[in-house]
Amino acid sequence: MIGGGEGSQIGATHRIAAGMDGAFDLVAGALDIDPARARAYALRLGIAPDRAYGDWRAMLEGERSRPDRVALVTIATPNSSHFEITRAFLQAGFDVLCEKPLTTTLPEAQEIVHTARAQGRICAVNYGYSGYALVRHARAMIARGELGRIRVVVAEFAHGHHADAADADNPRIRWRYDPKLAGISSIVADCGIHALHLATFVTGQQIESLSADFASTIAGRELEDDALIAFRMSGGVVGRLWTSAIASGRMHGLGIQVFGEKGGLRWTQEQPNQLYWTPVGGRTSIIERGVAGLSAEADRASRVTVGHAEGFLSAFGNIYADLAEQLRAGREQRAPDPLALFCPTAADGAHSIAAVQAAVSSARAGGTWISLS
Amino acid sequence: MIGGGEGSQIGATHRIAAGMDGAFDLVAGALDIDPARARAYALRLGIAPDRAYGDWRAMLEGERSRPDRVALVTIATPNSSHFEITRAFLQAGFDVLCEKPLTTTLPEAQEIVHTARAQGRICAVNYGYSGYALVRHARAMIARGELGRIRVVVAEFAHGHHADAADADNPRIRWRYDPKLAGISSIVADCGIHALHLATFVTGQQIESLSADFASTIAGRELEDDALIAFRMSGGVVGRLWTSAIASGRMHGLGIQVFGEKGGLRWTQEQPNQLYWTPVGGRTSIIERGVAGLSAEADRASRVTVGHAEGFLSAFGNIYADLAEQLRAGREQRAPDPLALFCPTAADGAHSIAAVQAAVSSARAGGTWISLS
Amino acid sequence: MIGGGEGSQIGATHRIAAGMDGAFDLVAGALDIDPARARAYALRLGIAPDRAYGDWRAMLEGERSRPDRVALVTIATPNSSHFEITRAFLQAGFDVLCEKPLTTTLPEAQEIVHTARAQGRICAVNYGYSGYALVRHARAMIARGELGRIRVVVAEFAHGHHADAADADNPRIRWRYDPKLAGISSIVADCGIHALHLATFVTGQQIESLSADFASTIAGRELEDDALIAFRMSGGVVGRLWTSAIASGRMHGLGIQVFGEKGGLRWTQEQPNQLYWTPVGGRTSIIERGVAGLSAEADRASRVTVGHAEGFLSAFGNIYADLAEQLRAGREQRAPDPLALFCPTAADGAHSIAAVQAAVSSARAGGTWISLS
Amino acid sequence: MIGGGEGSQIGATHRIAAGMDGAFDLVAGALDIDPARARAYALRLGIAPDRAYGDWRAMLEGERSRPDRVALVTIATPNSSHFEITRAFLQAGFDVLCEKPLTTTLPEAQEIVHTARAQGRICAVNYGYSGYALVRHARAMIARGELGRIRVVVAEFAHGHHADAADADNPRIRWRYDPKLAGISSIVADCGIHALHLATFVTGQQIESLSADFASTIAGRELEDDALIAFRMSGGVVGRLWTSAIASGRMHGLGIQVFGEKGGLRWTQEQPNQLYWTPVGGRTSIIERGVAGLSAEADRASRVTVGHAEGFLSAFGNIYADLAEQLRAGREQRAPDPLALFCPTAADGAHSIAAVQAAVSSARAGGTWISLS
Repeated sequence: MIGGGEGSQIGATHRIAAGMDGAFDLVAGALDIDPARARAYALRLGIAPDRAYGDWRAMLEGERSRPDRVALVTIATPNSSHFEITRAFLQAGFDVLCEKPLTTTLPEAQEIVHTARAQGRICAVNYGYSGYALVRHARAMIARGELGRIRVVVAEFAHGHHADAADADNPRIRWRYDPKLAGISSIVADCGIHALHLATFVTGQQIESLSADFASTIAGRELEDDALIAFRMSGGVVGRLWTSAIASGRMHGLGIQVFGEKGGLRWTQEQPNQLYWTPVGGRTSIIERGVAGLSAEADRASRVTVGHAEGFLSAFGNIYADLAEQLRAGREQRAPDPLALFCPTAADGAHSIAAVQAAVSSARAGGTWISLS
Repeated sequence: MIGGGEGSQIGATHRIAAGMDGAFDLVAGALDIDPARARAYALRLGIAPDRAYGDWRAMLEGERSRPDRVALVTIATPNSSHFEITRAFLQAGFDVLCEKPLTTTLPEAQEIVHTARAQGRICAVNYGYSGYALVRHARAMIARGELGRIRVVVAEFAHGHHADAADADNPRIRWRYDPKLAGISSIVADCGIHALHLATFVTGQQIESLSADFASTIAGRELEDDALIAFRMSGGVVGRLWTSAIASGRMHGLGIQVFGEKGGLRWTQEQPNQLYWTPVGGRTSIIERGVAGLSAEADRASRVTVGHAEGFLSAFGNIYADLAEQLRAGREQRAPDPLALFCPTAADGAHSIAAVQAAVSSARAGGTWISLS
Repeated sequence: MIGGGEGSQIGATHRIAAGMDGAFDLVAGALDIDPARARAYALRLGIAPDRAYGDWRAMLEGERSRPDRVALVTIATPNSSHFEITRAFLQAGFDVLCEKPLTTTLPEAQEIVHTARAQGRICAVNYGYSGYALVRHARAMIARGELGRIRVVVAEFAHGHHADAADADNPRIRWRYDPKLAGISSIVADCGIHALHLATFVTGQQIESLSADFASTIAGRELEDDALIAFRMSGGVVGRLWTSAIASGRMHGLGIQVFGEKGGLRWTQEQPNQLYWTPVGGRTSIIERGVAGLSAEADRASRVTVGHAEGFLSAFGNIYADLAEQLRAGREQRAPDPLALFCPTAADGAHSIAAVQAAVSSARAGGTWISLS
Repeated sequence: MIGGGEGSQIGATHRIAAGMDGAFDLVAGALDIDPARARAYALRLGIAPDRAYGDWRAMLEGERSRPDRVALVTIATPNSSHFEITRAFLQAGFDVLCEKPLTTTLPEAQEIVHTARAQGRICAVNYGYSGYALVRHARAMIARGELGRIRVVVAEFAHGHHADAADADNPRIRWRYDPKLAGISSIVADCGIHALHLATFVTGQQIESLSADFASTIAGRELEDDALIAFRMSGGVVGRLWTSAIASGRMHGLGIQVFGEKGGLRWTQEQPNQLYWTPVGGRTSIIERGVAGLSAEADRASRVTVGHAEGFLSAFGNIYADLAEQLRAGREQRAPDPLALFCPTAADGAHSIAAVQAAVSSARAGGTWISLS
């Protein structure tokens, strides 16, 4: 693991998710930008001294020459360093799981896609919400045609954690709305992108064009904290996205609704163990995670029996479980379980970045429709 | 009452709502386009033979000369006749409650506004959802500044009752998507308009400009059955609207969320007795209709004690209760109770029609922002 | 109407419910214990002077001799007077709707049952919650065998409106826990009885025996404010009831769950437009009031289209609608519509009183099972 | 670990929970009743060959003599062997986490309590639901007096997974209702006991006496599949419990409500990230797991940020986290963090067994109140 040092929430989450099924042990790391802290924390986490690296370059050098080199490199550093580190490890022949966003620009993301392909390496991107069992069940239902042709997908990721104007000087929040630090987009790049990824994940379609409206609702914010996006997908799906950081009362706010010619599905991250399904003209029924008769995709992504709440850590663990199977299959020179191929890839990461760029362009151009191609 | 004949759901609903508080009796009517049926049904409803009219013109003539002429004329005829009938009764000095939409074009709506003003008559339009006690409480909270400056309003009216492609030939549904019968817009004019009205009602602001995306998701439909609209309001509020007729699993789907600098409110028509309120940085609390300590606006709009479900008929009844008080005050030559002034007016009806027209123009122009002024 | 004077919530509710379908007009009344106030209020409600009575005896004398005597007498006086007034009007040949409880003792209730039968008169008791459309649909599903043999019914009516110890001296609340004023039971007789009635209503079975635990949780209360009752019904159903007045956070708290060999149903008064149905081994589906394909029982009890909230006033109105049809059928010397026979009767009132008495006996005897027969 | 072999859900869950924070590694095990399978599975899980034991006695011998003996023994074998194995490991000086129930009889449970005390060893029992962050927050609120004196606690654990009469011959279910295999109680011992433990956990009070009603609702079942229990606790709390296995439509059904003189709390396992709090006379507010300002008890039990769903595995992990800190403190000869003392102990296990026995006695004696002391 690179980054994810002491006090990092995302680092701790990665470690739990990776270890959940016993598939990965943390055996090497460059966990902090400060070499001394990086090594000290690695030792405290039980990493052997010779693999407690001071920085990622040292780790790259140290691991590439070992016969027992790490099976997977997780990159959880600040966004601006994702490109350089991911590329370096891919080029050195490592498999990589990079935190989202894959890079900060589209050309960089495309270069990563090409590098991974050229090297024959896995480059996964952590859109962890796609690991939820019922998100995968929704994808399976749609792929099997149970909804018929999809007409409309409604994605949402609207929370209220940046609603306090008094936080204008809070450094944990301020940088997110400063283009010098956060880039061209704030809430769309941070949250909207997850909702858009879910839209592509469950429909199996790409975003082709979009029209966006951005708003900055708190004085001093240069980047958007609320956005509305209309989009069209490759298979003709009509898309709607609302994303916000000032929606007081919404704790997380990620959800997706899919409406097809045979029925509609609704799911929210805050109540992830239920999927609402309504056939056209019929009654809404509640699909419970863990119940008998679900898709193999959902069953593989469940760890506790029906009725027990299962949460984000399990979803995240499913991303790692996919990677574990892919790596195992590679070692064993066999095809991986097709159910383990859902983990988001560099191509997904690049597509998301293209969508953000198009949204920024559209918003700046007064809602003009922008094509992603 | 004009229109609302036998088998008409809206006619029956008007009669229950009007009579709920004993304020109105149905004493005259031209209830059907067929004169014989109109008279027969009026008699069955207990209307005196000399006031059981065969058509609205006969009613206008009959009532205008009576000393005990009707206090209020409710117009529940097909949309295309609203303008002519409403104008005629206003010009004859009657007070009118017209079903929504007020007219089918903006100039007609504006003429009604002017006629009502010139005659000193009430011309109300039935945006009945604004009669819910907690919608009025939300308006009161916002008017008193409890949310501070409003940043974003999210309105929704998305149902799934037209999701069945097999209904393409169902006459009850087909006309709604045929521009020759339904005019320039379908779901926006039918449902979205209610959600937009709620946005103006609770914020006290008008819609100034908007950008729209329309979609027709079922073959053979010329008009939109799904739409997304970004808008801006007179006081700077950022608006979002999603409206749909193909959202299978949503039974009604009207709801509104308002986010201000001090907190957020959320309400849905399907669970109308709870209003969710979250101060910025604080916990969500549930405001129950009927509980002690609510606004006078909400108390006046409640008929049963806290915990008992109160529904649409009561909300609708509140529109009539407002009108009853306004009429009573007029007869008694006093100012009406200020709590009885919330009933939507012809100006609201005209504003809604302007918003629909702007949405159609924007959607046709590829999402360009259109100003309503 | 007798009782239900100015400021009476229950009186106003009766008037709305009775008038909802235009079936009943309020033409006579003795609305207050104070004759002058009774007459004055009656006049204000539009009752003719000769039928604005000062007390119920005057009304009995006045109406019995009129050719246009009232079709139905609603009794909404304090509980202790129900017996005398109801009996008197029944003996004089009137049809009666009495507020619950029918009487304060079981022998009195049984006498009313016999009087009504002997006179061939309707004596209804207002268990108004049984008027909800989906409660009637639940009954219809069970009657048609869709749940198979019923195993367990779980009834609940637990609110928190008497949770404030500071209310010990609040006269509106104190009397409810004083045996001299409230009789032998408080929360069971006031609320639990509604839940028990629903259990009998939906299952079509009577309560045969029960075991009760009563608790008074606030100092100074002699009667119970929280109770748990296990019961058995005539068809073998196992019953559970929890009722409380100190359950802070519950606004009303009436609900019922029925579990049979083929599936389970769940319904709550606070969200009355949805009924949750789960076939054994299958998925839960949501039955919406107003949707196509419901039972005739439910359709008859609905006044607005699917998705629109419908509330307690409509439920209450259905009790009056049942009575209107029964009276109409009587006048027309035909059998009433079988769908209009659900209105609770004096026999239901007597059965409820027997259950309360048995519960008090059991609680006093340390939970011993008591038979109602 | 002893038991929890291949295909065992509870074994897999223990391994995830134990490893979640990196505090425990699985280094030794006797995972199956079949020695060959036990060793083979242990090797597959990465246990060293010399610690992949064929049975628990071999493990006891093997580990007691090692300097690096296991820090904690998890016992996940069938119920009837808990007593013997737990006692043996305690007597050999090991710390133990035993699956619930601790033993099958009360004297055995008491012997375990005494053995653990005499040996100065930890003996924890896995009432894992008490590990949920908001259950701990509820306990903290009550302990700090925020609810005042507790009046009533309502516990529920009612699911529908044994509702199918066709399962009468399903071996996975049949044994649960056979006294020869399951002992004196079925649903109360299996599920009700968890709800009762939550009642003691959050109130800090013991159960003193109870009155129970048991029902077997499916032909062929000797033991109860539905039960209602009234109880009284050491601090005067009035208790209510409903537990069922035939409540079709309820997926899990564990929940708890606590009503005190200052307010009420409500929580359910199926939506574990929200705790509903209503001060007497005030509004219900929603306490979200992970939000700023919660108790230290809740914060310590959270692993992901607010809004992200957290589930049963995390709750279970908190039991292990408590044990890890207690063991660490023992090694470091210091007092453990007081926030790590919530893990249920042998005494809790014994108390639960006493409650089950009393419930069986009361049900057999027709609801007579039985004292636990």
